Amino acid sequence: MSDGDERGTTVDLNSDVGESFGRWTLGDDAAILGLVSSANVACGFHAGDASTLRRCCELAAEEGVTVGAQVGYRDLAGFGRRFIEMDPVELTDDITYQIGALEALARVAGTRVSYVKPHGALYNAVVHHEAQAQAVVDAVRAYDATLPVLGLPGSQLLARAEAAGLRTVTEAFADRGYTPDGTLVPRSEDGAVLHDPDEVARRVVRLVAEGVVTAVDGTDVPVRAQSVCLHGDTPGAVTMAERVRAALDDAGVHVEAFT
Amino acid sequence: MSDGDERGTTVDLNSDVGESFGRWTLGDDAAILGLVSSANVACGFHAGDASTLRRCCELAAEEGVTVGAQVGYRDLAGFGRRFIEMDPVELTDDITYQIGALEALARVAGTRVSYVKPHGALYNAVVHHEAQAQAVVDAVRAYDATLPVLGLPGSQLLARAEAAGLRTVTEAFADRGYTPDGTLVPRSEDGAVLHDPDEVARRVVRLVAEGVVTAVDGTDVPVRAQSVCLHGDTPGAVTMAERVRAALDDAGVHVEAFT
Amino acid sequence: MSDGDERGTTVDLNSDVGESFGRWTLGDDAAILGLVSSANVACGFHAGDASTLRRCCELAAEEGVTVGAQVGYRDLAGFGRRFIEMDPVELTDDITYQIGALEALARVAGTRVSYVKPHGALYNAVVHHEAQAQAVVDAVRAYDATLPVLGLPGSQLLARAEAAGLRTVTEAFADRGYTPDGTLVPRSEDGAVLHDPDEVARRVVRLVAEGVVTAVDGTDVPVRAQSVCLHGDTPGAVTMAERVRAALDDAGVHVEAFT
Amino acid sequence: MSDGDERGTTVDLNSDVGESFGRWTLGDDAAILGLVSSANVACGFHAGDASTLRRCCELAAEEGVTVGAQVGYRDLAGFGRRFIEMDPVELTDDITYQIGALEALARVAGTRVSYVKPHGALYNAVVHHEAQAQAVVDAVRAYDATLPVLGLPGSQLLARAEAAGLRTVTEAFADRGYTPDGTLVPRSEDGAVLHDPDEVARRVVRLVAEGVVTAVDGTDVPVRAQSVCLHGDTPGAVTMAERVRAALDDAGVHVEAFT
Repeated sequence: MSDGDERGTTVDLNSDVGESFGRWTLGDDAAILGLVSSANVACGFHAGDASTLRRCCELAAEEGVTVGAQVGYRDLAGFGRRFIEMDPVELTDDITYQIGALEALARVAGTRVSYVKPHGALYNAVVHHEAQAQAVVDAVRAYDATLPVLGLPGSQLLARAEAAGLRTVTEAFADRGYTPDGTLVPRSEDGAVLHDPDEVARRVVRLVAEGVVTAVDGTDVPVRAQSVCLHGDTPGAVTMAERVRAALDDAGVHVEAFT
Repeated sequence: MSDGDERGTTVDLNSDVGESFGRWTLGDDAAILGLVSSANVACGFHAGDASTLRRCCELAAEEGVTVGAQVGYRDLAGFGRRFIEMDPVELTDDITYQIGALEALARVAGTRVSYVKPHGALYNAVVHHEAQAQAVVDAVRAYDATLPVLGLPGSQLLARAEAAGLRTVTEAFADRGYTPDGTLVPRSEDGAVLHDPDEVARRVVRLVAEGVVTAVDGTDVPVRAQSVCLHGDTPGAVTMAERVRAALDDAGVHVEAFT
Repeated sequence: MSDGDERGTTVDLNSDVGESFGRWTLGDDAAILGLVSSANVACGFHAGDASTLRRCCELAAEEGVTVGAQVGYRDLAGFGRRFIEMDPVELTDDITYQIGALEALARVAGTRVSYVKPHGALYNAVVHHEAQAQAVVDAVRAYDATLPVLGLPGSQLLARAEAAGLRTVTEAFADRGYTPDGTLVPRSEDGAVLHDPDEVARRVVRLVAEGVVTAVDGTDVPVRAQSVCLHGDTPGAVTMAERVRAALDDAGVHVEAFT
Repeated sequence: MSDGDERGTTVDLNSDVGESFGRWTLGDDAAILGLVSSANVACGFHAGDASTLRRCCELAAEEGVTVGAQVGYRDLAGFGRRFIEMDPVELTDDITYQIGALEALARVAGTRVSYVKPHGALYNAVVHHEAQAQAVVDAVRAYDATLPVLGLPGSQLLARAEAAGLRTVTEAFADRGYTPDGTLVPRSEDGAVLHDPDEVARRVVRLVAEGVVTAVDGTDVPVRAQSVCLHGDTPGAVTMAERVRAALDDAGVHVEAFT
């Protein structure tokens, strides 16, 4: 209806939710779902029992938050954070299984799966691992070629998704440090993770408004992202998400799903 | 195209398939899928890894066999054969999860989930357990109220499915003995399971053609069933299925899915 | 060294610990282990990854707290709180497996498994379920007939353990209401669970010192218990444990393991 | 008592057993246990429910076969055949857990765990992966430093086990091809796996008697092994094991455990 100028700048905020499992609660899904525009809902392989997923989809539907399938390795004990050298065909099938399972719960909750984002070690693997990246792409394309794939700019995942004709969505990380090359500072190094909510909020506003972040060496580095990821399960996650959301609101940035 | 008289008698044959898991193979799915009209495909909770399920759906699609979701308790170690006193809401969500997971794999295999049948201990529980029977019905109704539910005549499951407006399909068991009341002989008693393929084949033909089986006391008992279940994972399962199918063919009974 | 009179009254305090799993944390094991004398450490079937169990045993060893095996059904999704109708022989083997797994981790942590206590739905089942009670007893007797079994007074478990020549230890629940018959008020009824730490602390002191608790109808009912169970994973669990421990210390009651 | 000359040549035969799981049967443990001297019994993480393990240990005890703990990654769906990039401390704890679980079942079966052998992808990983090799060694040393470790000659596992003061036992593979360097032909290449039972039997006899095998290029290559591994779960596994055992008997080689 309106052109870009009239609408002003927009950005998507995404966060991981649905990661409780049975007796174990993780994160404050209700609070996070009040702040983001896209919810990466776990699918039961790294976290998320069926009732958690259904309730999470209901909350997302109530809040008008878009639901994405946060697919991962089958590894509850490792929370999907351990690389598994899987057969790519089995990985494709595991991902299809997860998307479908969440789709059914989303459907009874009055919403649907609108995108796919790999979780944890799979997310990291598909930055470089060609066979696993292709396996994720194969699953999405065969299941529903209209589903966008959310991932790291420059990743094998997005390159192959694009080559397969899938819509790709790039993301940046609100609380992660960047190198002068525009890549994430490895978690083993200083400056990898930022903890000050106000600093993180300022960085996100600048990233959205100017397309730059301050790298660990103090220089400005261009970072293009259609979505910004907020962590949902770290201590202080809700506070940080609130600050980021408030700072974006103050800056006149419209938070809305990329879908 | 043709009316019932011209078509002659028809019956559906169903069997459990997709019950391998990773390195472990169970049953001969390819052989069984060449003989039945409806395939109760496991959904990963009691058996069935994602690749097994996808391949099984592909075979079913090739053979023109209808795919049903064989939903069960989350219990790989017990193969879904142990009753679990679950919260009904959690059971509903677990069943929705399973149907959706299989639906996605069926979809990429060129078919879809066309009915739901509980497995093992859940199948037995929903004969009498009102809350669990309702939980299964709630899952199906919320997910897709057009999906038929396959179960035991007289069961809570079918009574509640009917009350909820779902289509119900009754089944008989090819290799099980019946009491004079028309119920199954408990597995703990003599005559519970029949092992002679020819006897089983004759019984199935008579059941379909005349609507009666010979009970353990030698009397004839009326048994109405729209589908006949063939076991897929017992020793000699394929031979028995072949005999039953051949006997039905010889008797001019048309084997086709109830869907 | 000293006789009973000089030592004064003693009681054991036990609590469930080691119930975190991978990314999911439950309870504050370090705090609880500073307050109790016996630790019911999960064994991986209902909760507890191997590293959690080993660390928990290390803490227990440091604090001089006795380690018991908190054995349960194989049901992470249900946290062992759902009754499973298991084959008794399989239950016996599952319990042996769990005791041995914890024993190994206790050993490398400088301690050992000194008793066995069933968890959750298994705990409740073995109050009345004869076959499962016997299955637990069979496991303990075959593995190490010197291990005491901790359970509810009047339970099948303790009756059969005693009949099998095992040492039995009775327990009361600090925060549970009692009927005039001396049994626990069912969780579905009012007064089942007490929430006021001071009231709970007073009740525990009276239970230990006088062998009575005030029942829900206001009458005094005799309750004999060699150990008192404090819940470790409820909100306010640590506060309640601290009050109980302080009240016992104030009353001159010596808290020490029954082993 | 007697020196080597009087005793004649001896060799240990080992094979994987206990790899069934619940409803799923794998291999013919009873047949294999009648032929080998050492049984690598699964421990429940890649395969093996508790009842399978206990029965397997009972059979081993009856046959006088030594029981070893076949430890693996926690990955039932992948049968422990997928490399998992685990935290070494968690791997150590997982291995301790597995050894202890099997030890308890072995104990009630009248035997005990007498050595440790990694399974599948872990076996392959610890050939080169220093941190995981050390993690296995750390587990064994902390649990029971008298337990030998069985592995591939030249592997990180055996080097680190030796450095830690553990006894190491080298093994060769009966049905695998060797390169002129004395390493295994990769499974992706021709000649990796030998299928002719008679050829395999002849090779094993020569390996034991002369310390050489014929490499894929036809040259003789020296291979020193204190134990020879027979696969237990491949088609024809029992036949091959029978031929190897018969050929060794005919050649006057005494089959006995290395322990």
